Amino acid sequence: MEQDVITSEAATKGLTIPPDALLDHWQGHRRLTRKMIEAYPEDKLFTYSVGGMRPFAGLVMEMIRLAALGMRGLSTRNWEVTEDLKQYTESATPSRKEDILRLWDEVTDQIDRSWPEDFQEIHLAFGQYESPVFGIILYWIDNEIHHRGQAYVYLRSLGIEPPPFWER
Amino acid sequence: MEQDVITSEAATKGLTIPPDALLDHWQGHRRLTRKMIEAYPEDKLFTYSVGGMRPFAGLVMEMIRLAALGMRGLSTRNWEVTEDLKQYTESATPSRKEDILRLWDEVTDQIDRSWPEDFQEIHLAFGQYESPVFGIILYWIDNEIHHRGQAYVYLRSLGIEPPPFWER
Repeated sequence: MEQDVITSEAATKGLTIPPDALLDHWQGHRRLTRKMIEAYPEDKLFTYSVGGMRPFAGLVMEMIRLAALGMRGLSTRNWEVTEDLKQYTESATPSRKEDILRLWDEVTDQIDRSWPEDFQEIHLAFGQYESPVFGIILYWIDNEIHHRGQAYVYLRSLGIEPPPFWER
Repeated sequence: MEQDVITSEAATKGLTIPPDALLDHWQGHRRLTRKMIEAYPEDKLFTYSVGGMRPFAGLVMEMIRLAALGMRGLSTRNWEVTEDLKQYTESATPSRKEDILRLWDEVTDQIDRSWPEDFQEIHLAFGQYESPVFGIILYWIDNEIHHRGQAYVYLRSLGIEPPPFWER
């Protein structure tokens, strides 16, 4: 009993974010990014940008690729672009918003299904970036926030009010 | 001895991010944001934006306020804008880049000095947002990435190449 107490205190002390909370955190961001895709006029999603940057569809496909190949990589250590995952890469960018949203939702389920248990395990992500699991996942979340923030500027410059940042 | 092993395993199992790694993660983002401030032409920092949004100096002062008042709040539970912290609020936005950088560096030190130990403790941040410490800090980091991403668009639309996102 005393040991249980010590164990639980030690676990709480050394912990920043519970695994489920980190999953909720990312999925909350993904719900907001999904709202951003929905808020886009269909044509502008694929064509519009500012400062010579990629249109939002290109940025979204990058998020989809990182998450789809990434979650498979974390659970199998296979980081290759296999035939079954090609649909989640930029070279397979669909031409309709509804198809982007379908890919988005498939990846959302995949993240829920294969959420890691050990966040300290070291991976060579995409064969290039050596990091513990937590660092790899934080990078994907940060990358999504970074590019979605850029799409906020695109939308505002089109005269469209983006969904509030704090609503997930 | 066996108890130590169990304790350490339990701590590792329940942990996503070690406290020091979360601090490094934020400070890495802060170094990148500092590089963005440095990359800005002095006048554009205070005047230029796209889509009717705030200039980057306004966004940076929001980051400075959240971090300065926030770290004091997490360590003292006092979330008021006291006289000594007014310099870190938007109403005190300096008119020179070097003064923004000085405030930035002061807050960087403050974050190092008062990094929390208990990330599960509940706070009513700024008297409004009830959350465990980890959720509050994640929000500040996310908010910084979001607004800095917007400044990437501003800079690119000025024809200036921003520092690479992955270099911290």
